[in-house]
Amino acid sequence: MSRFMSMAFEQAEAAAQRGEVPVGAVLVRDGVVLAADGNRVEQFSDPTQHAEMLVIRAASPINGGKLDGCDLYVTLEPCPMCAAAISLARIRRIYFGAYDPKGGGVEHGAKVFDHPTCHHRPEVFGGLDESRAAELLRAFFRERR
Amino acid sequence: MSRFMSMAFEQAEAAAQRGEVPVGAVLVRDGVVLAADGNRVEQFSDPTQHAEMLVIRAASPINGGKLDGCDLYVTLEPCPMCAAAISLARIRRIYFGAYDPKGGGVEHGAKVFDHPTCHHRPEVFGGLDESRAAELLRAFFRERR
Repeated sequence: MSRFMSMAFEQAEAAAQRGEVPVGAVLVRDGVVLAADGNRVEQFSDPTQHAEMLVIRAASPINGGKLDGCDLYVTLEPCPMCAAAISLARIRRIYFGAYDPKGGGVEHGAKVFDHPTCHHRPEVFGGLDESRAAELLRAFFRERR
Repeated sequence: MSRFMSMAFEQAEAAAQRGEVPVGAVLVRDGVVLAADGNRVEQFSDPTQHAEMLVIRAASPINGGKLDGCDLYVTLEPCPMCAAAISLARIRRIYFGAYDPKGGGVEHGAKVFDHPTCHHRPEVFGGLDESRAAELLRAFFRERR
């Protein structure tokens, strides 16, 4: 597994430990990790605090608002909010784990990048280590029920 | 004009004064303003700091992460990121000013609410005080050129 995808899984596992839906994200440029975080929706009582938003917001100011040339590793297909934020931030590539037919916004639903009005479309690599990503989510929701 | 839409315009004008693309947003519940802010993308060097995101993030924690029953007034059609955040926050109604054929994600492009996987669709009222909202943006970009 990619070193960065492995780090994203560590962030997802840490999120689960905090009682959050286990999703983790890592933002990388030129082999250097700029930011790594997991979902913090419960912690902040704020539905926008997805892992992807947190790493984009953490890295943007230190890069003068430019994330061109950065790659994002995330354990789950981004939702439409995060997909649109990825486009606004002009992230170069996204690598994601499990597909999310119910909540995803890249390959499902709004398919945010697939419209002529989407001004920047990253390269997308989906389904990486898909079974591990899916099992992490299943285990979390199994425990909650 | 609605009192709240008027406040959203004040926030948009304040954003223009700060050198930001002039968009303002106000979040209201039961006639009480929970949060009001304008675009702060330049200030924070962060492409996610749209007016809508700022008011949602400001109000969510004080409401325990629940914005059901809240209405959002914004001077421009929300982009796909903000539209998806509005849905995640379960905002009841959105009232927006100018339509945004190039960047909007409600009536244009990804049409975030118009998919079966969109779990909460607010009531949408678009084109309010449209000419004022459009003129505000035109004046801003005219000065910049």
